[in-house]
Amino acid sequence: MFQFRNDYSVGAHPRVLEAVAATNLEGNIGYGADGYCEKCAALIRTLCQAPEARVEFLIGGTQTNFTAIAAFLRPWEGVICAQSGHINGHEGGAVEATGHKLFQVPAGPDGKVTVEAMTPVMEACQDIHMAKAGLVYISNATETGGVYTLAELKALSKYCKANGLLLFLDGARLGAALTAEGNDVTLPDLARLCDAFYIGGTKNGALMGEALVIVNPALQPEFFRLKKQQGAVLAKGWLLGVQFQTLLEKGLYWELAKQANAVAARLQKGLMDKGYAMANATSTNQIFPIVPAKLLTELDQICTYEVWSKNPDGTVTVRFVTSFASTMADAEGLLAALPDLRG
Amino acid sequence: MFQFRNDYSVGAHPRVLEAVAATNLEGNIGYGADGYCEKCAALIRTLCQAPEARVEFLIGGTQTNFTAIAAFLRPWEGVICAQSGHINGHEGGAVEATGHKLFQVPAGPDGKVTVEAMTPVMEACQDIHMAKAGLVYISNATETGGVYTLAELKALSKYCKANGLLLFLDGARLGAALTAEGNDVTLPDLARLCDAFYIGGTKNGALMGEALVIVNPALQPEFFRLKKQQGAVLAKGWLLGVQFQTLLEKGLYWELAKQANAVAARLQKGLMDKGYAMANATSTNQIFPIVPAKLLTELDQICTYEVWSKNPDGTVTVRFVTSFASTMADAEGLLAALPDLRG
Amino acid sequence: MFQFRNDYSVGAHPRVLEAVAATNLEGNIGYGADGYCEKCAALIRTLCQAPEARVEFLIGGTQTNFTAIAAFLRPWEGVICAQSGHINGHEGGAVEATGHKLFQVPAGPDGKVTVEAMTPVMEACQDIHMAKAGLVYISNATETGGVYTLAELKALSKYCKANGLLLFLDGARLGAALTAEGNDVTLPDLARLCDAFYIGGTKNGALMGEALVIVNPALQPEFFRLKKQQGAVLAKGWLLGVQFQTLLEKGLYWELAKQANAVAARLQKGLMDKGYAMANATSTNQIFPIVPAKLLTELDQICTYEVWSKNPDGTVTVRFVTSFASTMADAEGLLAALPDLRG
Amino acid sequence: MFQFRNDYSVGAHPRVLEAVAATNLEGNIGYGADGYCEKCAALIRTLCQAPEARVEFLIGGTQTNFTAIAAFLRPWEGVICAQSGHINGHEGGAVEATGHKLFQVPAGPDGKVTVEAMTPVMEACQDIHMAKAGLVYISNATETGGVYTLAELKALSKYCKANGLLLFLDGARLGAALTAEGNDVTLPDLARLCDAFYIGGTKNGALMGEALVIVNPALQPEFFRLKKQQGAVLAKGWLLGVQFQTLLEKGLYWELAKQANAVAARLQKGLMDKGYAMANATSTNQIFPIVPAKLLTELDQICTYEVWSKNPDGTVTVRFVTSFASTMADAEGLLAALPDLRG
Repeated sequence: MFQFRNDYSVGAHPRVLEAVAATNLEGNIGYGADGYCEKCAALIRTLCQAPEARVEFLIGGTQTNFTAIAAFLRPWEGVICAQSGHINGHEGGAVEATGHKLFQVPAGPDGKVTVEAMTPVMEACQDIHMAKAGLVYISNATETGGVYTLAELKALSKYCKANGLLLFLDGARLGAALTAEGNDVTLPDLARLCDAFYIGGTKNGALMGEALVIVNPALQPEFFRLKKQQGAVLAKGWLLGVQFQTLLEKGLYWELAKQANAVAARLQKGLMDKGYAMANATSTNQIFPIVPAKLLTELDQICTYEVWSKNPDGTVTVRFVTSFASTMADAEGLLAALPDLRG
Repeated sequence: MFQFRNDYSVGAHPRVLEAVAATNLEGNIGYGADGYCEKCAALIRTLCQAPEARVEFLIGGTQTNFTAIAAFLRPWEGVICAQSGHINGHEGGAVEATGHKLFQVPAGPDGKVTVEAMTPVMEACQDIHMAKAGLVYISNATETGGVYTLAELKALSKYCKANGLLLFLDGARLGAALTAEGNDVTLPDLARLCDAFYIGGTKNGALMGEALVIVNPALQPEFFRLKKQQGAVLAKGWLLGVQFQTLLEKGLYWELAKQANAVAARLQKGLMDKGYAMANATSTNQIFPIVPAKLLTELDQICTYEVWSKNPDGTVTVRFVTSFASTMADAEGLLAALPDLRG
Repeated sequence: MFQFRNDYSVGAHPRVLEAVAATNLEGNIGYGADGYCEKCAALIRTLCQAPEARVEFLIGGTQTNFTAIAAFLRPWEGVICAQSGHINGHEGGAVEATGHKLFQVPAGPDGKVTVEAMTPVMEACQDIHMAKAGLVYISNATETGGVYTLAELKALSKYCKANGLLLFLDGARLGAALTAEGNDVTLPDLARLCDAFYIGGTKNGALMGEALVIVNPALQPEFFRLKKQQGAVLAKGWLLGVQFQTLLEKGLYWELAKQANAVAARLQKGLMDKGYAMANATSTNQIFPIVPAKLLTELDQICTYEVWSKNPDGTVTVRFVTSFASTMADAEGLLAALPDLRG
Repeated sequence: MFQFRNDYSVGAHPRVLEAVAATNLEGNIGYGADGYCEKCAALIRTLCQAPEARVEFLIGGTQTNFTAIAAFLRPWEGVICAQSGHINGHEGGAVEATGHKLFQVPAGPDGKVTVEAMTPVMEACQDIHMAKAGLVYISNATETGGVYTLAELKALSKYCKANGLLLFLDGARLGAALTAEGNDVTLPDLARLCDAFYIGGTKNGALMGEALVIVNPALQPEFFRLKKQQGAVLAKGWLLGVQFQTLLEKGLYWELAKQANAVAARLQKGLMDKGYAMANATSTNQIFPIVPAKLLTELDQICTYEVWSKNPDGTVTVRFVTSFASTMADAEGLLAALPDLRG
């Protein structure tokens, strides 16, 4: 069985696990007040060229999204997001559970939010009987593998600043985005353009963990208290600092993401060569081939994957996801096992 | 420096870490739907003699407390807890953040809730302009190291059943309680007397994790959805199943707790022999000696610990906590380094 | 100036105000525990042929919507509503503020929710990483003046029962709906088909007040406590009982609604005769003519109204609303003052 | 039967009701955007000598308390209040339902919060694992009829400013407080010393309504949106403006309160003269005589009242409340009907 179900099916990269083991019994103060977290926060500030940023380590993506949003917004404010945004789907209604409305705007197959899509919401919100849009949530890479260009992020950032909106970027798959072919965005760009964003560890080499970078100074005070309240403080907090330090200090994080992207690209190209259309072609570690419905039984024998959508024409869009543990051999193996759809 | 700050200052017991490493790259389905969690849930049901219980793994104690309470209660219901209860202190107002009031009742130095203390709250709640008490929160061991006897738990359980109250037991330090000298309570007792309780991993040998046992069938449906909403689903969920399996399948969990208790008992006895009074003598892994204020400077050089309270008479109550990693040598070493307070 | 801005621009019907004045100083127990509320609740049960229903008086529509929804749902559940549903617009994000997600489904110009529109949401909610749809919110009349037929309500009710969904009907304009030309729905129908619904007083003759009818016995216990918690208990609660009693005991409520509908119908027909298209023709007290943008300046001099939407073709949809205080003379006057758009 | 149950047992003062009737059908814009509310807000600013204050009209006390607190605080912040504070009792857990913890501090029989009582909470909150105290809630008159002196308010205000706490005053019975014998506090004092407070209408001459005065400019923006979200915007909002205008423009509000206080004072003195002890002697419109338990049966025949507490010595504290509608004759009548406890 070739493993393409998702990018959280294996544990940590071996070097990360070694670092965890090496520090296992040394004794550290709890709750992230340890030296590893401190040192790693400093490293992240340096990598982001954001010396005043507050860096906070949290455990998972859903948790980071709602904790940050709840911390940043006032109770009458809501969040603009794509209809396909992760916070609007597989997060159990977590943002609403903190009391905030989602203003869902349409996005294309690439899952990106645009200024154009937001404008009607912003107009409607002029009415004081409505919740007020206070924050724009985007993800990079998006839920469908899309990558924001620098120009797109600049446009969003400019609009947000002009309209009193915070810009928050979900980076659960930030490694995939920033190492994607054609990407022109850097960590310092994100730090300059967003109010806050995070560097996802869970989906790129860590056992768990997301590193939230709060750039906007107005959003920094007392964040720890909300993190505590929302159950997002890991008691043995150094586990997060140690892992991110290992991933980031010598660039392992980017190598792993690049590897995952490369395997996905190989798979996508191979599938296209065999006549498979893509629901949307991507440059990251998720690909979305359209397959005949009858192929699913066969697919179930060959690999793990997810059904993404059943299409009106009877075809099915499936999702293959690669991770740091995926190999070119996996891609080649799957390609060899799949039928050629041409002629 | 002798380490007595708390029981979450080191990582996992080596055998637990080995199990995590052994399964690191094997590939498992995410979110706790894997075989390890399934198998471990079955084991816990067996250990508790509760074949119909729902077992859910969560990441930390605060998270488990508020997620369970939010899942179990209706919005007009509140929680009875000791003023010294963990949910009323170092949890950042987490239960209230889910919308539920805390009815704080006085408890003695042992931190235990009694029927007597609850009665005035229950009477006041007859008034429909009040929130209604819906659940009693207790912890075992308590925040001050106390252990409930079977008779006490039976009395609470009986009162709760008679008065429409759920009984929820915070077991962050359950290992310490159930292996304490004189303890007469078992897992099956808890399953019979409580509506839900948890077996704490974080403070007894795991990297992180709490195993929540929901015994009352009315509280079981859809729990996963709320766990997801509250950010309490670990993406790589097998990490929790693997750890608890290792801790519980051959009794390692109880051995570790017993060891921590033994070191604490040695320390407590030694201190008393040297003339130190205890704010409350305990039989678990936390002890609370009263020391002269001027001793703190010296203490800071010798060991890690926490200041628990500054007392009106100028003395200070400090807390020493032992863990599975504490040794008798640590206890002896600390005792040797401390002055004798007698004559 | 002809008054067509809305149906809450004047106070109570004179007979209602007289009843309030007559009881003003007699002395009544507070919080709705008085005899007027009791008697009126009994009357409503009789009118609805729902002898076991719980009737609760609240102050306003937004408040009734979120209080009922918060009382009826569990924290992981969300609400299916039309994108144009009132809870999704001019209620300030109130339902989300109680922690519940809105699943917004498309509706036609009449604002009605259909089984077809709900189906994709119900399918998506099978995934336990999503919030679960728990309740369907509809309004009758709808926000755009639409009226549900008995067949439509039966279909919704059947689908809800089959799929574990509660059916809740916002009756802020229930008078307008049930007295609309062609309406075939009665109060007993609503009591049989919905789990709960309300009879709106604010928009039909009362100073304020909505009478919530909770038919489903599972939703009745402790409702008062949540009403209190949400600030929805009027201290001088008899004011609501007295008003609804006056409105309902001899049918005044239906007379007032019929009158408002008749004036709106006259206005709509007259406008169509003069060449005005309707965004959606209605049979209730709101009408939605499409006017040339340049007419607005003139309109501002003649009458009060609201701009409903600016249309892509440069026209503007406006809204005229009638109330019990609107007269045929008002309609004729406005019609006479408006230009003929034909030829 | 003499009516002493509470101060919300009759409707509005006749002059207030006349004003409501006089404006009933004139037609006003909804939601408080009318001229009456505007004019009355200006009047209140003048009376408070607070030209920059934002004045908002809400419907009831519980609603005003939780809406203001939810608007003013960040999610990690809690409220310091007396254990006997109204928000901690008969408000159904409303503040917690908005997500905020109550830090309950002991108060004397007069129900007043002191700096001394707050200090331990403030010290505990230094710990970032705790919720942070963000606001002090006091009521004037208190729930037990107490009145703050100017010196007391100054001390609280000074402490709050020095410690980053907001000071919020519940004025449901503000009329009674500011007209009490010996009171030395004025509206301008409140505006200078509090961040926000309200002038209660429900308990002093209005059908319903509380006028919230938000003095601190940082707390003013977007308050209307939260009011809307919390169901606290009355559709026919001018009803509140008209009533408060009538009450405040010529001092009727203070006359009514003075009258209620005078009747209460007569009653209290008469009772003391007949040998009744007071649980706490007051100078406002609530009095708390201690009566033999066996007197209750008799009392039930003579007057309406509330049982306040059953005392350990077998006596019962009852509460008599006067309102603008209470007369000296009522007091004399009740006194004459009650037995003399002396000798």
